[in-house]
Amino acid sequence: MKHYLSINDIDSLPVWVDEAITLKKDPYQFKELGKQKTICLLFFNNSLRTRLSTQKAAIHLGMEVMIMNFGSEGWALEFGDGTLMDQGTSEHIKEAARVVSEYCDIIAIRAFAGLKDKAKDEAEEVLNGFAKYASIPVVNMESSVGHPLQAFADAITIAEHGTKSKPKVVLSWAPHPKALPHAVANSFVEMMKLQDAEFVITHPEGYELNHEITKGCKIEYNQKKALENADFVYVKNWSSYTDYGKVLSKDLDWTMTQEKLGKAKFMHCLPVRRNIVVEDAVLDGNQSLVLDQANNRVFSAQLVLKKLLEDIK
Amino acid sequence: MKHYLSINDIDSLPVWVDEAITLKKDPYQFKELGKQKTICLLFFNNSLRTRLSTQKAAIHLGMEVMIMNFGSEGWALEFGDGTLMDQGTSEHIKEAARVVSEYCDIIAIRAFAGLKDKAKDEAEEVLNGFAKYASIPVVNMESSVGHPLQAFADAITIAEHGTKSKPKVVLSWAPHPKALPHAVANSFVEMMKLQDAEFVITHPEGYELNHEITKGCKIEYNQKKALENADFVYVKNWSSYTDYGKVLSKDLDWTMTQEKLGKAKFMHCLPVRRNIVVEDAVLDGNQSLVLDQANNRVFSAQLVLKKLLEDIK
Amino acid sequence: MKHYLSINDIDSLPVWVDEAITLKKDPYQFKELGKQKTICLLFFNNSLRTRLSTQKAAIHLGMEVMIMNFGSEGWALEFGDGTLMDQGTSEHIKEAARVVSEYCDIIAIRAFAGLKDKAKDEAEEVLNGFAKYASIPVVNMESSVGHPLQAFADAITIAEHGTKSKPKVVLSWAPHPKALPHAVANSFVEMMKLQDAEFVITHPEGYELNHEITKGCKIEYNQKKALENADFVYVKNWSSYTDYGKVLSKDLDWTMTQEKLGKAKFMHCLPVRRNIVVEDAVLDGNQSLVLDQANNRVFSAQLVLKKLLEDIK
Repeated sequence: MKHYLSINDIDSLPVWVDEAITLKKDPYQFKELGKQKTICLLFFNNSLRTRLSTQKAAIHLGMEVMIMNFGSEGWALEFGDGTLMDQGTSEHIKEAARVVSEYCDIIAIRAFAGLKDKAKDEAEEVLNGFAKYASIPVVNMESSVGHPLQAFADAITIAEHGTKSKPKVVLSWAPHPKALPHAVANSFVEMMKLQDAEFVITHPEGYELNHEITKGCKIEYNQKKALENADFVYVKNWSSYTDYGKVLSKDLDWTMTQEKLGKAKFMHCLPVRRNIVVEDAVLDGNQSLVLDQANNRVFSAQLVLKKLLEDIK
Repeated sequence: MKHYLSINDIDSLPVWVDEAITLKKDPYQFKELGKQKTICLLFFNNSLRTRLSTQKAAIHLGMEVMIMNFGSEGWALEFGDGTLMDQGTSEHIKEAARVVSEYCDIIAIRAFAGLKDKAKDEAEEVLNGFAKYASIPVVNMESSVGHPLQAFADAITIAEHGTKSKPKVVLSWAPHPKALPHAVANSFVEMMKLQDAEFVITHPEGYELNHEITKGCKIEYNQKKALENADFVYVKNWSSYTDYGKVLSKDLDWTMTQEKLGKAKFMHCLPVRRNIVVEDAVLDGNQSLVLDQANNRVFSAQLVLKKLLEDIK
Repeated sequence: MKHYLSINDIDSLPVWVDEAITLKKDPYQFKELGKQKTICLLFFNNSLRTRLSTQKAAIHLGMEVMIMNFGSEGWALEFGDGTLMDQGTSEHIKEAARVVSEYCDIIAIRAFAGLKDKAKDEAEEVLNGFAKYASIPVVNMESSVGHPLQAFADAITIAEHGTKSKPKVVLSWAPHPKALPHAVANSFVEMMKLQDAEFVITHPEGYELNHEITKGCKIEYNQKKALENADFVYVKNWSSYTDYGKVLSKDLDWTMTQEKLGKAKFMHCLPVRRNIVVEDAVLDGNQSLVLDQANNRVFSAQLVLKKLLEDIK
């Protein structure tokens, strides 16, 4: 594996899930693998889980961790080719990526969608810029269009809590006061396509995700119908993709409730707006897997780093 | 010990002081204790001494340290119960505390008083929220109402420099251009109540600290009289508690001078406004213990972490 | 060596260059030297290369690294003597420097020129304040007037790529949209004065650097003439020194091009404005040494830290 940019960089999801679960039993078992290896975590956006879990994963592997809030601590980056850099940007992605490659063995990057310009977001200039110009492996810690460390953690969580060989999994849109990116939903969909499951996506009309990603997935606009006999319900808000970055609905009828959830397990990537996205009763009840998901972020990142380190050696 | 939230979490101050002094003689003697243990330092406010000394204490114990400036790097926290989170806050303290607990073994938190709303400050929602919902020990790195790592460092410093079995210790209010919290003064008073000492608090009228804390302590409004035959003078500004968060006086007659200090040792937690809180001659003279106090912050934190680690194992 | 504040703290440049090149062959060979030693990196300004390379250098030596963005995470510093600190500054450099000295073994500091007040910038109050009051070695990670870690990395790079015993080296001013400090140019000039080379400085009239620094150096206002038969061309913008901090010219005739460069090697400290300071063809061509320079920042810092650690032991 050269980089971990999307869920499609996983060659075999079941194998990876098994390996991650094995890793979890003894987190420090490969602590020699990362010895004298350094990972640089570059944040262009805020983070709690991703920051701490990726750092912890690297610590488990014996790596050194260098962290930068690129926006506030570094230089404004230029991405254009042939630009006359006489405006606000101080450093070209070519130099930034190449230079960081001189100082570490793996780069991990978080750079969210701006949700203003679809083409620009989909070009993923930060992530792809680093992947193009860095001479070392790049890990996606959530980009404009994907959050594959989250989706892999979700796969681990589903595997750990599943009781059927082919569970029913529902991705259910939820209301939210702010426009949120599609990254988590996209990667979850991509991951589900690699699973043996009955997978349904439910959301109000106008909230269709990128068809290139959901192609082949069942979409059911009636949430109640979608949720019938679900084993896992993954709740998540995203803004409109068609009417890019817009909030078309804040309809609290889409809020997940204990009643709607039935006997299914509840999943969410966090942070979550209580009583908007999901009611307290669900989050505080024992069907919630959100802490398992958060915990699995460590082992998701750790397996990715382990595989990258093995390929470096 | 479950958490270290206030000076009252110390079971025996003399024993702890002795242990800290022993620790100081060979700071790395327990470096195996923190092996494969991680502390997360969460800052909601600025810090110099607390940040570096707590980090150093953890390093001495062989721990891994993860640091977050929660305000700028994380998500705005919600504390209310049952809130519909459709406003500015993105993550509930329940999730934040539980999630951080998944990634580390001890959490240390700094969250100052806002000095606008006494009830809110005294509710200590950040510190108490983490203590309530985290599944791991929480350490107070200065909260709205207390700074017990500072007060314990002060106890160590007094023990190291005392020449009498029952010294006279004076807490003397000082002027300051800005409204400051009561945390340092509160914890110092609480710590002094655990000491065998003649303890006097002196301040202008209107600057009485919370009576629940100073109950039983001698308060002398005449600074000169309070300072007579003092062995240690702890100088500190705080804003009014009664007229909450207000600056009632900037009277430079309360500034500590070499003349007033006499033969006493001078103490202050730093940072200090020179020639407002205390004149240069005192800080630059050899009766000042401020660097000893700063240095003892390492061993104060280290003993607290050591005790928490011993209870985890 | 007490501190590393300027290039003139190097006792023998050829010996240091040789030692750094040896270090580079096995970066972890002195990893025992920094064991149980801590470096604190204090940033008053942004940084990418300096931050990561100095951190990496310390890791190579087995040191613990504590990093602070002093501006946003710490307290506003006061530098005046005898000041009544009743204004915006919260902590005096005397306390800050002494306190940080309690927590680590080496302090490294970045504090840029403000370019508003020449006398104030040249007083170097942050760097010199720490050097004056700290009780431990201080390293300059770029100050108002110098960037000696960069200049030493440049010396290593020239030594590695030189083919003549006395190469021709040209420092060529370049246009830039913003007013930049003189630090990099100053230290490069000081370093070149310690080299056996034919050294020429070229810039438009009005861009003369501090004569105290360039004294004895050849200055040629005709860029073309200056560049004739050059072996190394170091391109850098700086603002006017005489008309302090002003941008007198943005003349793109001074931009470095492949044609002007001829067969010389191209050097720049980065970050660099593409097609303003230098055209793409040069940066993307194989005469560019910018990545070698960036990589050598690690070994420049590492040799400095190694020498300081050896003197501590």
